Amino acid sequence: MSARTISVDVIRIPTKGPGDVSGLIQLIEAGRIDPVSILAILGKTEGNGGVNDFTREYAGSALSIALAPYLALPPERVEERVAFVMSGGTEGVLSPHITVFTRNLSGNNDAQSVFADKRLSIGIAHTRNFLPEEIGRGAQLTETVKAVAAAMADAGIDNPSDVHFVQIKCPLLTSDRIEEAHGRGQRPVTTSAYGSMGYSRGASALGVAAALGEVKGDIKDDDILKRYDLFSSVASTSAGIELMHNVIIVMGNSRAAASPFVIGHAVMRDAIDTAAVIDALQSVGLRGEGSAPVAAGGLVNIFAKAEASPDGTVRGFRHTMLEDTDISATRHARAAVGGLISGLSGTGAVYVSGGAEHQGPPGGGPVAVIARV
Amino acid sequence: MSARTISVDVIRIPTKGPGDVSGLIQLIEAGRIDPVSILAILGKTEGNGGVNDFTREYAGSALSIALAPYLALPPERVEERVAFVMSGGTEGVLSPHITVFTRNLSGNNDAQSVFADKRLSIGIAHTRNFLPEEIGRGAQLTETVKAVAAAMADAGIDNPSDVHFVQIKCPLLTSDRIEEAHGRGQRPVTTSAYGSMGYSRGASALGVAAALGEVKGDIKDDDILKRYDLFSSVASTSAGIELMHNVIIVMGNSRAAASPFVIGHAVMRDAIDTAAVIDALQSVGLRGEGSAPVAAGGLVNIFAKAEASPDGTVRGFRHTMLEDTDISATRHARAAVGGLISGLSGTGAVYVSGGAEHQGPPGGGPVAVIARV
Amino acid sequence: MSARTISVDVIRIPTKGPGDVSGLIQLIEAGRIDPVSILAILGKTEGNGGVNDFTREYAGSALSIALAPYLALPPERVEERVAFVMSGGTEGVLSPHITVFTRNLSGNNDAQSVFADKRLSIGIAHTRNFLPEEIGRGAQLTETVKAVAAAMADAGIDNPSDVHFVQIKCPLLTSDRIEEAHGRGQRPVTTSAYGSMGYSRGASALGVAAALGEVKGDIKDDDILKRYDLFSSVASTSAGIELMHNVIIVMGNSRAAASPFVIGHAVMRDAIDTAAVIDALQSVGLRGEGSAPVAAGGLVNIFAKAEASPDGTVRGFRHTMLEDTDISATRHARAAVGGLISGLSGTGAVYVSGGAEHQGPPGGGPVAVIARV
Amino acid sequence: MSARTISVDVIRIPTKGPGDVSGLIQLIEAGRIDPVSILAILGKTEGNGGVNDFTREYAGSALSIALAPYLALPPERVEERVAFVMSGGTEGVLSPHITVFTRNLSGNNDAQSVFADKRLSIGIAHTRNFLPEEIGRGAQLTETVKAVAAAMADAGIDNPSDVHFVQIKCPLLTSDRIEEAHGRGQRPVTTSAYGSMGYSRGASALGVAAALGEVKGDIKDDDILKRYDLFSSVASTSAGIELMHNVIIVMGNSRAAASPFVIGHAVMRDAIDTAAVIDALQSVGLRGEGSAPVAAGGLVNIFAKAEASPDGTVRGFRHTMLEDTDISATRHARAAVGGLISGLSGTGAVYVSGGAEHQGPPGGGPVAVIARV
Repeated sequence: MSARTISVDVIRIPTKGPGDVSGLIQLIEAGRIDPVSILAILGKTEGNGGVNDFTREYAGSALSIALAPYLALPPERVEERVAFVMSGGTEGVLSPHITVFTRNLSGNNDAQSVFADKRLSIGIAHTRNFLPEEIGRGAQLTETVKAVAAAMADAGIDNPSDVHFVQIKCPLLTSDRIEEAHGRGQRPVTTSAYGSMGYSRGASALGVAAALGEVKGDIKDDDILKRYDLFSSVASTSAGIELMHNVIIVMGNSRAAASPFVIGHAVMRDAIDTAAVIDALQSVGLRGEGSAPVAAGGLVNIFAKAEASPDGTVRGFRHTMLEDTDISATRHARAAVGGLISGLSGTGAVYVSGGAEHQGPPGGGPVAVIARV
Repeated sequence: MSARTISVDVIRIPTKGPGDVSGLIQLIEAGRIDPVSILAILGKTEGNGGVNDFTREYAGSALSIALAPYLALPPERVEERVAFVMSGGTEGVLSPHITVFTRNLSGNNDAQSVFADKRLSIGIAHTRNFLPEEIGRGAQLTETVKAVAAAMADAGIDNPSDVHFVQIKCPLLTSDRIEEAHGRGQRPVTTSAYGSMGYSRGASALGVAAALGEVKGDIKDDDILKRYDLFSSVASTSAGIELMHNVIIVMGNSRAAASPFVIGHAVMRDAIDTAAVIDALQSVGLRGEGSAPVAAGGLVNIFAKAEASPDGTVRGFRHTMLEDTDISATRHARAAVGGLISGLSGTGAVYVSGGAEHQGPPGGGPVAVIARV
Repeated sequence: MSARTISVDVIRIPTKGPGDVSGLIQLIEAGRIDPVSILAILGKTEGNGGVNDFTREYAGSALSIALAPYLALPPERVEERVAFVMSGGTEGVLSPHITVFTRNLSGNNDAQSVFADKRLSIGIAHTRNFLPEEIGRGAQLTETVKAVAAAMADAGIDNPSDVHFVQIKCPLLTSDRIEEAHGRGQRPVTTSAYGSMGYSRGASALGVAAALGEVKGDIKDDDILKRYDLFSSVASTSAGIELMHNVIIVMGNSRAAASPFVIGHAVMRDAIDTAAVIDALQSVGLRGEGSAPVAAGGLVNIFAKAEASPDGTVRGFRHTMLEDTDISATRHARAAVGGLISGLSGTGAVYVSGGAEHQGPPGGGPVAVIARV
Repeated sequence: MSARTISVDVIRIPTKGPGDVSGLIQLIEAGRIDPVSILAILGKTEGNGGVNDFTREYAGSALSIALAPYLALPPERVEERVAFVMSGGTEGVLSPHITVFTRNLSGNNDAQSVFADKRLSIGIAHTRNFLPEEIGRGAQLTETVKAVAAAMADAGIDNPSDVHFVQIKCPLLTSDRIEEAHGRGQRPVTTSAYGSMGYSRGASALGVAAALGEVKGDIKDDDILKRYDLFSSVASTSAGIELMHNVIIVMGNSRAAASPFVIGHAVMRDAIDTAAVIDALQSVGLRGEGSAPVAAGGLVNIFAKAEASPDGTVRGFRHTMLEDTDISATRHARAAVGGLISGLSGTGAVYVSGGAEHQGPPGGGPVAVIARV
């Protein structure tokens, strides 16, 4: 590992709408955020989280335009420098917000003397663009494996057990893209745009699992969205219409990091796994008093994945999320898991993202917590 | 109080659909439930909980047809004898089920010697039918006050502090009913069918508050859906298209009761009030171990109301439930509060009902728990 | 062909809700409908038309209970005698209603002298129950071929060109059914309940196409929901949770029929094919005057299928039905085609059913009209 | 009237998403559209058309950013110069697109010699910003009256009968705005964001009716959304979250206009008024052949309003649009009327906008057609 020091800051900012960048700009203008150091922005936007959720694209566009002058870049080139991961869907008590991750690298060899323990670090990497027919298949998985390794190195993390959250933004299929593939005689994994979101999330998550050694041996195309016993405990993948490649953001604790934050995680076995959420909170030192299970004092944000249990039940009782033609299962799942996590942490401004294929066990998902030390 | 003994039983039965009565029939045939003693059935059905939710009506119809032969009544007269309260909407992890309440009265003077402490009792009463223009106004409220008193007497409860849950089924306006009123020169409180559900629930809840002394002094028509500082801590009101009067079911603890159950309640101040849910669970002796806040052992069921906070925020963070044109606010709120309560109690087969106008403080709602002693 | 006479009557009855049978009962009590002669009832109910649309099941249950005493059958056996086809979804201007088909057979050899021309006849047949893994595959198709032939014979029709509408009610997969198949080591065609509706409709429609010679040669499992160039011009298939077999209703014109009605059809090439709708209307003698294209005088009902064009466009312009996560494509399509057909016929009480896989060309569908002569 | 000549051009451009400006930019770069002459852009975007439809705002933002360099204005000032009216909701066969209106004025006195007949002209005006409590009330109405007169003068139209379409973009209430008014002791017309859209559209439409003499005498606050016998036959009003004032665009035929287009209109009496649509098409010379009622040759675009009939019926048959909790009535209505108009005109790229309060008779709405001469 290099002798450099990685200084990370994490700031959660509420938003008034998908196009609202006022909070971010205010903090930049106040000198609280150095725009040049922004590495990634994860956001929850108030769309439906589905194929036709344009709030993600709108938020990305608004952020690009807002940051462009500070970065001396044209808006269309901002995303090459800052990773935007907008997850649509703030159902129930979930509250629209962005979390800004900044990073400063320095060559200071003494860095590690600053803190005796490992602190939050963050690394990033991109895959190449995918062809429509590669989405949800081995090509997407294999490229993800490579990019996770690159992002770990970027974060100064060499032990997979120090990785607590891997956020991936991945593409989906649209009518256009499917047509384009058909035009070349290729057959994409599905002709359903909504369905393709699951395939893309699943292949990307299995890429993380392979990269971190969570799954041993070969993963076949046919395993994707089939063998749900294969999963990553730290992957969080989110599909969006606005890109054709995967963006990988690795978060973990590193001795190279000089930040006042730590990150921890647990795995929710199902959508009502209170114990896992509390374990994740306690793993970074957050404990409640009396009947309030958690004190929100040092909490920075929680990052979790939610999904409707594919077997149609939660702890033996039937749920109806998969059979509701009016509300998509991902909206149901975000609302429910968002309600639980918000209740346990005392705030709705948490990042709960839908569609947890191969991210945690079937019906469950990873939950990671960043806290101020 | 009378010297009679009230023996109450409470059985929760999962359902496979709104028309599924197989579980109930099986228990009747097995001698586990005496059909003649059934006083009320509260159910969660998997509709949308809105105006066009016919699953409630369907479930009521199926139950009437199933019970008719056991009661030697024609199906259309079963509801005169058994109160059905079907609450539509099993969003997120909520699971369709019914809870059957049976009651046997006996003149045995020694009843009170059976248990030293107060036990779960249940009473019931009906108002007269309302005219469309009475719904959501003083007439509905005043008639409810009278019926709550009658139901308390029926339950053998004379102290309002022993009342822990008052479930009311109330009517709503439809295009037809609005037209009918207009035809007589009357102007209903609203011309929106969906909107009328809130008015009806609100007037009914304020009737409970007045009956139990929770609100002092006169309540005016204009206070309904306006003065949200006026509320009941134990009312749960549910609007349905299938009736034109209010059905009142009072649940509480009574010395006259000889049942192996107790009931307790707390008030959620907002949709993420974990402490209130835990307080309600602990009030009937349910405590968790380790990081699992609650042991589900003796739990029979939880009855709670959920609503989107009318000021648009939860603990200072904006929610988007009221501004979503695709998912109604009641569906959002049930999903979120259902997620929290399910997580804390370990089961999705709980009764979380939407639309908590004047039921608990704005954005909050009552939560009652029945446990086996 | 037999020498019997088939007397058919067709009565359209508006309904006030899925459980409303009052209109039908009134006509029976008034002697207008002989309950013993009821062969089939096709209805539009106001659910969402999707997996969790219980209005279809509720309507069927209400009709069974209402007709049982007239048929001297227990309610659960009524459907063995009368075919109920409830199509959920009355989006836009579509209006909930039922169409009652009655039939009387007589041995009168002179029947054919009554009318010189062919008149509306109707025949019916059932397949065996399917296993979950047979749905959407060859077994369902092959059984349908046999049943169409049986229903034609039943209708006194021997020439396929005299068949103008073949309504099929077919099953869908639920979580339970999928689990059951998995338990036997079988893999159903899809694990999505919503998705299974399309497979079941598609296989059934191709069964009609094969039976009527519209498609020549073998149809393979892989052709279902893939080769959309294979289709029937008269099939209308509707999936519902309430059965496990196919019910086939053949409608056409027959010399054996002694009814005051005729039926005709055309094929909508896309969802805005006004010319086809007008052709179908004109084929049974319905013509408009002035700028109103059609006079509604003799119209009894229109039966049409609607679907979102799978290539994402209608006459070169992009539609957004397939990418809307909040409204299912079938709801969109019914609303749009229902708007057009209602406009051209002057009434919203028409039978427009969603999901037209292999029923007409991709994005189009059959449209049949019954008119009083 | 002035001696100036008004040269108007109208170009319809399909879009690939709410943020897609590529078609417009291509036409500008090709010299086909002079950006400086752009007066207004009316668009259909693929959101839900409700309160939380951010596609309108996103489209406006994308257009502002795209046009800014051509107009030498900062993006945030583009809307002061070009009126954007984005109507959300492309249900059913409706296709996302924008219609660009350009205008050039010249002092040439000979203008009127160019064409003997009246041709399409267009004028524009803005009201002042409204306070939240003014929305849906007299203040909004009165200001609209003034602005319509100003826009007519701007269009060179002095006879109200030459006005065929008045498009208004008007504001709505949000939680924030309602709170702000409450903070000042003011009570907005409704506390429902969704409900406020109707009030704002209604007050604006009545402003048009008053301005054009369609309604005589005083219109009271209480008439808004109550007296539906008061309406404008040419008003089309669309509420959006992105502004606090009304933008008025008057379209009509004027002798001062030198454009190759004419505009005409009719009033749909209900949602299935085929005759009115055909009348409007024929009023600008568009006639069909055979069973296709209309030839699409010279059609430029159609502008229509749709709404669910408030009495719950269409030509005596019950519709279910107002009682559907899963799909808002405006989405239902757009889908149905869009289906009809698309069928009669042969294209889904038409402007059908929801919410027709006081725009045409109850359940109906204006339909205007622009055709190339």
